[in-house]
Amino acid sequence: MSQKISDSTIRRLSVYLRLLEDLEKAGTPTVSSEELARRGGTTAAQIRKDLSLFGSFGKRGLGYTVAELASRVRRILGLSGAWRVALVGAGRIGSALFAYPNLASRGFHIVVVVDNDPEKVGTQWGEVRIRPQEELEDAIRSEKVDMAIVAVPVEAGQSVVDRVVSAGVRGILNFAPTPLQVPRDVWIKDVNLVIEMEALSYALSQGGED
Amino acid sequence: MSQKISDSTIRRLSVYLRLLEDLEKAGTPTVSSEELARRGGTTAAQIRKDLSLFGSFGKRGLGYTVAELASRVRRILGLSGAWRVALVGAGRIGSALFAYPNLASRGFHIVVVVDNDPEKVGTQWGEVRIRPQEELEDAIRSEKVDMAIVAVPVEAGQSVVDRVVSAGVRGILNFAPTPLQVPRDVWIKDVNLVIEMEALSYALSQGGED
Repeated sequence: MSQKISDSTIRRLSVYLRLLEDLEKAGTPTVSSEELARRGGTTAAQIRKDLSLFGSFGKRGLGYTVAELASRVRRILGLSGAWRVALVGAGRIGSALFAYPNLASRGFHIVVVVDNDPEKVGTQWGEVRIRPQEELEDAIRSEKVDMAIVAVPVEAGQSVVDRVVSAGVRGILNFAPTPLQVPRDVWIKDVNLVIEMEALSYALSQGGED
Repeated sequence: MSQKISDSTIRRLSVYLRLLEDLEKAGTPTVSSEELARRGGTTAAQIRKDLSLFGSFGKRGLGYTVAELASRVRRILGLSGAWRVALVGAGRIGSALFAYPNLASRGFHIVVVVDNDPEKVGTQWGEVRIRPQEELEDAIRSEKVDMAIVAVPVEAGQSVVDRVVSAGVRGILNFAPTPLQVPRDVWIKDVNLVIEMEALSYALSQGGED
C-alpha cells in the first residue's frame, strides 16, 4: 500500500463496519454516506474520504450497497478469515476479556489460555483448558496462534511479550499497564485505563468544548 | 488554549509522566529528551515538540529537571487534584476495573459503584457499598462525582450514559461495546476490545512494517 493509513482511519472503518452490519441485519439494501454519517456521529465527507483511501465505493446519487461495502470493509480489515488468539493471564481482566461479547463472532478465537496460578491451571473455560505458563511457546506453535492478548501484572509484561514474539506472534494487545518493547515487525496495542482517564482529566480541566 | 492539542499528544504526555515518575522514584534529578525518548520508545524531537505546545521546558544542554517537569505535566493533565468517579456495572469488567492498579494513586477515586443485580447490591467492595442502579443520579450528586466509568451490556449503554450526563457528569469512559451519543460539552472515550483487535487484524494483513 503506497499511502500510509492512520490508526484513526482504521478505527473509523471498524465503526462503519458495525453500522453496516446493523443495516444488513435490518435488511436495508443501500445506504447513503449521509445516513451512515448520521448513525456514526460523523460527517459524510469524512466517510467518503476514509473509503476513498481504499478505492472506489458506491455510486453517485445511489449510495452504497450495504452488503458489498460491508464485505469490502471486512476484507480491508483482514476479517475475511479467522484469527487464532492466545490469552496470557486468566485473572480478573483475562476472564473479562475471555467473556467479551462478539470477539468470536468477529473472527477472533481464543484457542489458548495460560496462567501461572496452579489453582487455575487445568480448569476449563468453555472449550479451552487453562495451561501452565511454561507451555506458552509450545501452545502458540501447536495451535497456530496469530495474536496474543497479554493480561498480566506490569512486572511480567515484558517477559511475556518477549516469549510470545519468540514463538512467532506478530500482533499483541497489551493490558499490562506499561509500554512494552517489541521488534519492528511486531504490532502491539496498549489498552491502559489510567491513560484513558488522564485524557478525560485533561479534557475536563480545559473546561470547554473542543 | 488557542492551539488544538491532539489526543495522541495527550496520550504521549501520560507516557512521559510515567517515565518521569519512575525517574523520580529512582532519585534521578535531571533527564535529557534523548534519554526520555529512549525509555519511551520515541524520538527526542517528538518529546520536544509535544512539550513545546505547553510552554518552555528544560534548558539547552542541561535537560529537564525531573521533579519540575513531572509536576508541570501533572498540572497540564489536570492531575493536581483528585477526581471522583462512579462505576456503573459491577460485572466482570467492572470488578476488573475496580481492582485496576494505580487508578487511585493517579488521583482517580471510585466513590460510587452501582449495579442492577440484587445479589450484588449492598455488598461491599473495599470501602464502597454497591448501590442499586436507581440510586445512580442521587449518588452522583451527593458524592460529587466528576467522571463515570460505564461497564454495562451494550443495550443498557445509552440509557446509563444519558442518566450520568443528566446528573452532571462531563467525562465518561465507556466499555459498553458500542458508540454512545453525548452532548457536545461532555467527553466520552470508548474502550472497545474488538476495535483494537481489528486494528491488529488490519496491520497483520498488510504483512509489512509501517
